[in-house]
Amino acid sequence: MEENKINIPPARTIWTEGPFVRIIDQRFLPHEIITELLETDADAVRAIAEMRVRGAPLIGVTAAYGLYLAARAMETTPDFNQNLRAAADRLKAARPTAVNLAWAVDNAMARVEKETVPARVVEILRNFADRLAEQDVAVCKAIGENGLALLERLYVRLGRPVQILTHCNAGRLGCVEYGTATAPIYLAQKRGLPLHVWVDETRPRNQGALTVWELAAAGVPHTYMVDNAGGLLLRQKKIDIVIVGADRVTLFGEVANKIGTYLKALAAWANQTPFYVAVPASTFDTQVTDAMEEILIENRAPEEVLWMTGWTENGRQSVRLTPENTPAYNPGFDLTPPDLITGLITERGVCKPERADILRLFPEWR
Amino acid sequence: MEENKINIPPARTIWTEGPFVRIIDQRFLPHEIITELLETDADAVRAIAEMRVRGAPLIGVTAAYGLYLAARAMETTPDFNQNLRAAADRLKAARPTAVNLAWAVDNAMARVEKETVPARVVEILRNFADRLAEQDVAVCKAIGENGLALLERLYVRLGRPVQILTHCNAGRLGCVEYGTATAPIYLAQKRGLPLHVWVDETRPRNQGALTVWELAAAGVPHTYMVDNAGGLLLRQKKIDIVIVGADRVTLFGEVANKIGTYLKALAAWANQTPFYVAVPASTFDTQVTDAMEEILIENRAPEEVLWMTGWTENGRQSVRLTPENTPAYNPGFDLTPPDLITGLITERGVCKPERADILRLFPEWR
Repeated sequence: MEENKINIPPARTIWTEGPFVRIIDQRFLPHEIITELLETDADAVRAIAEMRVRGAPLIGVTAAYGLYLAARAMETTPDFNQNLRAAADRLKAARPTAVNLAWAVDNAMARVEKETVPARVVEILRNFADRLAEQDVAVCKAIGENGLALLERLYVRLGRPVQILTHCNAGRLGCVEYGTATAPIYLAQKRGLPLHVWVDETRPRNQGALTVWELAAAGVPHTYMVDNAGGLLLRQKKIDIVIVGADRVTLFGEVANKIGTYLKALAAWANQTPFYVAVPASTFDTQVTDAMEEILIENRAPEEVLWMTGWTENGRQSVRLTPENTPAYNPGFDLTPPDLITGLITERGVCKPERADILRLFPEWR
Repeated sequence: MEENKINIPPARTIWTEGPFVRIIDQRFLPHEIITELLETDADAVRAIAEMRVRGAPLIGVTAAYGLYLAARAMETTPDFNQNLRAAADRLKAARPTAVNLAWAVDNAMARVEKETVPARVVEILRNFADRLAEQDVAVCKAIGENGLALLERLYVRLGRPVQILTHCNAGRLGCVEYGTATAPIYLAQKRGLPLHVWVDETRPRNQGALTVWELAAAGVPHTYMVDNAGGLLLRQKKIDIVIVGADRVTLFGEVANKIGTYLKALAAWANQTPFYVAVPASTFDTQVTDAMEEILIENRAPEEVLWMTGWTENGRQSVRLTPENTPAYNPGFDLTPPDLITGLITERGVCKPERADILRLFPEWR
């Protein structure tokens, strides 16, 4: 494991370097860009467990590469198959609740189930990881193209830079490239469509600072603000479109996303401003019918609310914001009902947040 | 000027001690309770200018006492009247935009206009300041009684602790005692009505930490949370009533209050939860007709958003939250339209946020 500090943000969040894999150690963003070379599956496990990489798609790709690194390292060992299965289990346990993680590892293992030559297993696993990464890029790019069409229509109508509001970081840092909510923005920027992004701070973990970092690196004009400010901007009609990502979307169009999303959806709805959710097919949950009843809201540590971490001249520092012994409540996400949502931007097109229209794009879920 | 660190929160935010006046130096709250003895008008000017005292009513009372301290100190000087007028001007200039400040100083000066005996002027000014303080306590207590009636009705219906959400600090720290939005809460607590208060952090200046400090000192059960969390609680019907203060209320019921108030009002409205604004008569603006057009939104320093100040083992510390050179937008308050507001709690009773009902309570504004 070799660390490297660089100044220019890399195009992707994970890439191969010879036989190894390089990631951005995202714990130091947005203040330092430190990359790390993953040489073993233990490196990959640690990167996932310690949230050096985050975001469901990126975790999945990292785990797939981790399995390849495991196979490569143990290629000549006895009990190759048994050791590989143990490595797969360790990778899956790195973040127990991440769906993409288990999916990626299980799918990779299924592809080598009947393969007996270790060298072939190594090759298949590497190809699988490469394809998974390329697939994530392709899905995000397709979401970008479909969202870009919306931005283009707005620009034609308005004749001035399109004002976009986003919440949290549904950006490329959680994916391999492009991101979800940010994909239309990056494509618009590349193709010269003028726009400006209003970025919610997104307390308590301030993922807005990551979004700002991404946008600055891509040269996209942007402004950072506290979560409280977006309501005023929407009421003043200073926002043309809201685009957010999602953690989970039901077939009935209920959207679980970072805490605070619901308040922005309400303000957009009350001020006739389009509110879109950018989601890949993998984010849909085809099982849930009553989101408010069935989706468990994750209650996170109170310390995330009571303390704030930032940077000083002497490096990272946490400061306490409240009196000692203050009780705090820290739900990780909220639920936005479909009647506040204009549309879902998927890799197959844009649909309304309702069962019939979702199934029009994804007939395999019928 | 003598400073004093104490452990038990005082009942009031300002009080007399012999010929002098003592305040809480609020810059160190919620982490330390430091009181300061004001012995001269220069002490009062500094306390106001450096925001050692804050909140319109408290600033007014501090200025009135400051004028008394000026008169007392210069009682035996030649040019007494001229010196007093100069002191009045210095006090009024301490925070140029605070309406209560100019009002208190001008009113105090009007009362001594025809008085030629300095000793009488000193006495009149002290009495005026004392009365102003008592009047603020009485107004806040009356708001408390009127709001308490709402809480009592909720408690009778629910039969369990009333769940209240509040935003910012419309508490006793900005007044002399009781506060505005907190007045019903303190009275309820005193009279044994069971309740629990959900406190919005209120970024960017985190006045929620002051509210938490106040509630803890009064023994009121409470929970702190980020501003993003309230929408979820309201959608889950875990809040019975929202009570906030206001910076300004028009006769048409439009409410200017701390940034983020509008988002909570929307969420309360969408979930059929009563949303009340606690305001003294002095907060009404009888001139404005179109709030969105006429009320100028104060844009505050971006640093308030980009940096956060908190406490470490080594005292107060500011940390940077975003990449360097991040542009930020920092509006100080927003506007909540009357159709989202259930009622206004004033010292004369509760009214609807509409002209006819406001004028029913305040016929003198007809």
